[in-house]
Amino acid sequence: MAELINREDAIAQVHDWLVAGELAQAVAYLRELHPADSAEILAGLEPEQQSLLVDQLDPEELAGLFDQMDGEDAAEFLQHFNYQDLAAVLDEMEPDSAADLLGELEPQDASAVLDQMEGSEAVAPLLTYPEDSAGGIMNVAPPALRRQMSIAEAFDFIRQHYRDAEEVFYLYVVDRNDCLIGIVNLRALILAESHQTIEDIMLRDVFTIRVDMDQEAVAELFSRYDLLALPVVDEEGRLVGVITVDDVVDVLQEEATEDIYHLAQVGPSSDIFSSVPRSLRNRMPWLYVNMGTAIVASTVVAFFESTIATVALLAIFMPIVATLGGNAGNQTMTIVVRSLALGEMSLGNAWKVLRREMVIGLLNGIALGLSMGLVAWYWKGNPMLGLLVGLALLANMSVAAINGVLVPTTLKRLGIDPALASSIFVTTVNDMVGFGVFLGLATYFLAWLR
Amino acid sequence: MAELINREDAIAQVHDWLVAGELAQAVAYLRELHPADSAEILAGLEPEQQSLLVDQLDPEELAGLFDQMDGEDAAEFLQHFNYQDLAAVLDEMEPDSAADLLGELEPQDASAVLDQMEGSEAVAPLLTYPEDSAGGIMNVAPPALRRQMSIAEAFDFIRQHYRDAEEVFYLYVVDRNDCLIGIVNLRALILAESHQTIEDIMLRDVFTIRVDMDQEAVAELFSRYDLLALPVVDEEGRLVGVITVDDVVDVLQEEATEDIYHLAQVGPSSDIFSSVPRSLRNRMPWLYVNMGTAIVASTVVAFFESTIATVALLAIFMPIVATLGGNAGNQTMTIVVRSLALGEMSLGNAWKVLRREMVIGLLNGIALGLSMGLVAWYWKGNPMLGLLVGLALLANMSVAAINGVLVPTTLKRLGIDPALASSIFVTTVNDMVGFGVFLGLATYFLAWLR
Repeated sequence: MAELINREDAIAQVHDWLVAGELAQAVAYLRELHPADSAEILAGLEPEQQSLLVDQLDPEELAGLFDQMDGEDAAEFLQHFNYQDLAAVLDEMEPDSAADLLGELEPQDASAVLDQMEGSEAVAPLLTYPEDSAGGIMNVAPPALRRQMSIAEAFDFIRQHYRDAEEVFYLYVVDRNDCLIGIVNLRALILAESHQTIEDIMLRDVFTIRVDMDQEAVAELFSRYDLLALPVVDEEGRLVGVITVDDVVDVLQEEATEDIYHLAQVGPSSDIFSSVPRSLRNRMPWLYVNMGTAIVASTVVAFFESTIATVALLAIFMPIVATLGGNAGNQTMTIVVRSLALGEMSLGNAWKVLRREMVIGLLNGIALGLSMGLVAWYWKGNPMLGLLVGLALLANMSVAAINGVLVPTTLKRLGIDPALASSIFVTTVNDMVGFGVFLGLATYFLAWLR
Repeated sequence: MAELINREDAIAQVHDWLVAGELAQAVAYLRELHPADSAEILAGLEPEQQSLLVDQLDPEELAGLFDQMDGEDAAEFLQHFNYQDLAAVLDEMEPDSAADLLGELEPQDASAVLDQMEGSEAVAPLLTYPEDSAGGIMNVAPPALRRQMSIAEAFDFIRQHYRDAEEVFYLYVVDRNDCLIGIVNLRALILAESHQTIEDIMLRDVFTIRVDMDQEAVAELFSRYDLLALPVVDEEGRLVGVITVDDVVDVLQEEATEDIYHLAQVGPSSDIFSSVPRSLRNRMPWLYVNMGTAIVASTVVAFFESTIATVALLAIFMPIVATLGGNAGNQTMTIVVRSLALGEMSLGNAWKVLRREMVIGLLNGIALGLSMGLVAWYWKGNPMLGLLVGLALLANMSVAAINGVLVPTTLKRLGIDPALASSIFVTTVNDMVGFGVFLGLATYFLAWLR
C-alpha cells in the first residue's frame, strides 16, 4: 500500500542527523526514498546542509533529484555545483529536464555548462523553444522506424536503441526527410506476423502537435481526447519530439493552481513554503492594487456622505448590498473563467452565456432582494428602507451578472489572462454600483427614511 | 495540426440540418468527428433531436459517445433507451465506463439492464465500489501472466487475450491465489532472450493501490511520482483492477474545478451550459448563506450606529478596511486550501505555516496601514482619522492571516472539505473584525474626529 511520507517530519529528521554529524545515516535515508520525496526534503534544508549531502551523492542520484524539483527549488539548489559537476549531472538527466534546468541559469553559465556536457547535442535544440510551448515540455524524439523495415528488423532496432529508454508508448515511423508518416504501438508489434513490414501495421492517421503550440492548449487536447502520447512536429512536418501524458499532468496541475491563485489575487509562484520575502512579493502588490480600487469605490460613498450623516443606519445595510452583489458577480466570473480555461466556453458563445447569466442574475436579485428587503423592514420597522434595500440588491445583482461575463471575456479578447485581472475589475465595479444605487435611491427618497 | 472544433457552431449546424430534415448529413458529420466532440454536440441538442440521431447510430458508436459524456449529460441522454438497447450499448463499452453509466440509473433499472447484458460479469463487481474511490475509477484487471511462463508462452498469451485490448502499459503477474507478485513492461518482453521466463524479467517491487483509496489520493500519487499506470488490489493483495494516468487526468481536472467553484461558493456540478434552474440550485443557497453572514457582520456596524451618525465620513473608510482585510485573508486561505489539496501541507505543519503567515500578515498590515493611513489623512485633512484607519488595517490584516490558516485547517481536521466552507467563515470573521476594530477605535477617540 502506497504511503506518503510526512515531509516536515522527514526534513526535521534529516536536519537532526546532520546536526548530530550522522551524515551517512542521512544519505542512506535519502537513497531509500522515492526521488520525489528526497528532492522535497533536500529543498527544505539549509544551504549548508544541502551542500554536505550533495557531496555524498553521485551524478545519477543528483539527476534523479533535479528531475523532481520544481523550477524555483532547482534554481536555488544549483548554487552547490560548479560547471563540470553540473554537466555530469545533466548528462544523466532526460534531455527535456536538463534543458529546463539550464533555462534556470544565466545564458553565459548555461552555455559554459553545455560545453562540458557529453550529451549536449540532445539538449541544445530544446533550449530554443519557449518554456510554456509544446517544444518546452516535449522530450526529444526517440529513434524512429522506417516503413520498409520487417518485424524482425524492428525488434532488433528496439533492442539496439531502446534498451535504456524510459517507458515507451509508441514507436514512430518517418520518411527519408524525417517527416512523420505513421505510428506503431508495441502491442501491434507483438501481435504482428513475421512476414509483415512496419508499413503494414503502422497507423497513418496520426494526430500531431506543432512545436510552437501553447502548453495549455496541449494539455486541453490530452484531457479532451484522453491521449497518452502525441508526436511533436516542426513546420515542415519533421518529427522533433514527443509529449507524454505525465508531462501534461504537471501542466494541468500548474495551470489549475495558477488560475486559483490569480482568482484570489496571489502571484502564481506562491506556495505554502515560500520564504517571507517571496510571499510578500507575490501578495503585497495585489493588496496595493486593491487599496487603489477600494479608494475609488469609496469615492462613491463619499459623494453621499451627507445622506449617511442624516440617516446613519444606511451604513449598516450598505455593506450587505455590496457584499451580496460581489458574491453573485464572483460566482458568475469564476464559472466563466474556468470554462474559458477548460475550453468549454469561447468568445463565440459569450453572448449566449451573457443572456443566460442575466436571467440568473435577475432571478437571484428578485429572490435575495425580496428576502433582504423583508429583513430590513422587520429589523428597523421602516418599509421604505426595506424597499430601497430590495431594489438596490436587484439592481446590483443584475449588474454583477453582466460584469461577471463581460469582464473575463473582454480580458480574454484583449489577450490578457482572464483569471489574472477579472476579480479586481468585477469587485470594483460591483462595489461602486452597489454603493451608488443604494445610497442614490436613499438620497432620492430621503424624506421617507428619516 | 490538431484543431479544436467550435462547439456552439457545430451544434447550430447539426440543429439546422435536422430542422431541414437532412438527417443523413447530420449523422455523417457526427461520425466524422472524434467521439469527444460528437458527444458534446449531441448533449447540446434538444431531446427530440437527440432521439432522431440515436436511432441512426449503432451500439458501438453510441458506446463511444457515452464514454465521452460527463455524468449529468449521460444521465439525461439515457432517457432515449429501453433496457435492451442500453444493454447492447453497454456491452460495447469499457467495463469501468459501463459501471459509471449504470450508476446514473435507479437501482432497479440498473439491475434490469445488467440482466440483459452479455458482459455483465465484468461490470457487476465494479458497481460495488464508491464512485470516488480507486475502485470507482479503475478498469477491471486485464488477464494476468504466471511467473513460470516462457517468453514465447507470454507472446501467445498476449496474442490470445490482448488482441482487442485498449492501450497496454504493463502486464501483471499473479500467483495461484490471484495475488499480484510482479509487473512486466512490454519493452522488457520485446528485449527478453528466448530462454528466459516471466519470473526473470518481472519487476517485483510493485507499487499498488488499495481498492478503497480515495480518488483524490490516487491522483496525488500519480502526479507526485509521475506514474503511468498502477495496479489496484483488494485487502488480500489480489489484483482487482488497473488505474491508468488518463483516468487520473479527468480526476485532477474535476477536483481542481470543484475546489475553484467551492472557493467561489458555487455548487461543483455547475457549468456554463447548465440550465437556469440547475444554475440557481447551485448558486442561490450560497447567496442566502452569505446574506445571513452579511447580516451578522452588519450587526457590528449597527452597534456603532451613533458613532457613524456623529462622524459620517467613517462610512467611507469602513468598507476599505473590511475589503483589504478580506483580500489578505482570502490570499492566505486560498494558498492553504490549495496546498492541502495538493498534499503539500498537512495538519502536522500547520503551526509552522501559521507562524509564517502571521509575520506576513503583520508586515502587510504595517505597509498597507501606513499607506492607507496617509491617504486618509491627506484626503480628509485629519491626522487622527489616518491613525485610526492605519491601526484598524494593521489589526484586521493580522487577524485575517490567522483566520486564513486556522479556518481551512480546522475544517480539514473536522473532516469537512476546506474549499467548501472556508470562504464563508473567513469573510464573515474578517468583516466583523474589520468593522469592529475600526468603529470601536473611532468611538473611543470620537472627540478627536469631530
